[in-house]
Amino acid sequence: METHFQKELQELEESLLKMAGLVEGAISDAVQSLVKRDSDLAQKTFEGEDKINDMELAIDDSCLKLLALRHPVATDLRFITSAMKIITDLERMGDQAVNIAERAISLNQEPQLKPYIDIPRMAEITQSMVKDVLDAFVNQDPKLARSVCERDDLVDGLNDQVFRELLTYMYGDSQTIARAVHLMIVCRCLERIADHATNLAEDVIFMLDARVIKHHADVKEGGEGRNIT
Amino acid sequence: METHFQKELQELEESLLKMAGLVEGAISDAVQSLVKRDSDLAQKTFEGEDKINDMELAIDDSCLKLLALRHPVATDLRFITSAMKIITDLERMGDQAVNIAERAISLNQEPQLKPYIDIPRMAEITQSMVKDVLDAFVNQDPKLARSVCERDDLVDGLNDQVFRELLTYMYGDSQTIARAVHLMIVCRCLERIADHATNLAEDVIFMLDARVIKHHADVKEGGEGRNIT
Repeated sequence: METHFQKELQELEESLLKMAGLVEGAISDAVQSLVKRDSDLAQKTFEGEDKINDMELAIDDSCLKLLALRHPVATDLRFITSAMKIITDLERMGDQAVNIAERAISLNQEPQLKPYIDIPRMAEITQSMVKDVLDAFVNQDPKLARSVCERDDLVDGLNDQVFRELLTYMYGDSQTIARAVHLMIVCRCLERIADHATNLAEDVIFMLDARVIKHHADVKEGGEGRNIT
Repeated sequence: METHFQKELQELEESLLKMAGLVEGAISDAVQSLVKRDSDLAQKTFEGEDKINDMELAIDDSCLKLLALRHPVATDLRFITSAMKIITDLERMGDQAVNIAERAISLNQEPQLKPYIDIPRMAEITQSMVKDVLDAFVNQDPKLARSVCERDDLVDGLNDQVFRELLTYMYGDSQTIARAVHLMIVCRCLERIADHATNLAEDVIFMLDARVIKHHADVKEGGEGRNIT
């Protein structure tokens, strides 16, 4: 039978996934605003940001209540404190989406410097990382978390590629410098979001590995494993 | 008489201040490496980074133990969960210092583009923000936390100024573009560190305001204040 506490943890899990969905949407709107040269979509990112901020506060509050009233230990404790860190990361990913949207509005007022191919690809990978790291966390799936870390290299590779390409534009024609710098910043924001997701994925792996080591230590009774609580 | 739990909280506070000190040192070494064109100092930043990462894990572990064994509530609970978030920020500030050190090594291999005046100034303000936001947290000083937020505007202002100046170099002579981009990234890293400090300062203000409102609600007996636990 499901206890009230288990139901609360379930609700926490659902809120985290919902918040991650809002962040994915904010990234998508911001990048689509650039790709489709539609500044109204940038506006949607700004509105999404308010919802993301509200969710951060609400989830933080719920976590504190759970800690204060339920005295969780071991896995549940780690789950709740991890949730509190995750929402901080999600909120900052939302901030980066807002930065992208701001740059999109500026860029949409100028002639397009180049076709956007790698940037939407970077955004797509980054969104998948946000989604999957949350899934890895709630399903305690270290394999999925590792695949998130691996995708960070793809994003870094695309970032380096776009960066070099933009430098070529800048060298070739000084009229392109301002737009190229805006685009470099867009890429850097996407890279930052991917970094946040990777940091979270590393935390998930660490948390699960710690449990494995702890478990081994428990089995050996009094062995010197890393104790996560 | 001081309880064992109070002593543990005191130790946690000291560890946080020590970790913040390491981060300040890492920023200082990284920027001095650039200003003095001394790549050995960049090496010191990399070594400092290892210590910062170790402290993050150790403090996180201590916090989990305190939550599991002491069942803290109200202010103590908020203090411990805030500490867990703060160390994540401190660790990422350390990452940014490493990014600066990497750029310094690249830049030190080329002729110096311009005298570095605003960048050390940005670094100095940023270091003061890291120090003061931790002091504001442990001394529960909202005024100091607000002054940290105000300094973020100074850093952003200097960043914009250096950014415009570097754009002028880039427009004037395409040979300067690569170095100017490295310097833009150094500034962006400092700005990111200042953002982390500002986020933390906002959390401190929010935490203290919440307590004030809660206190007022308690005084009114059953009033509808924001309850932080």
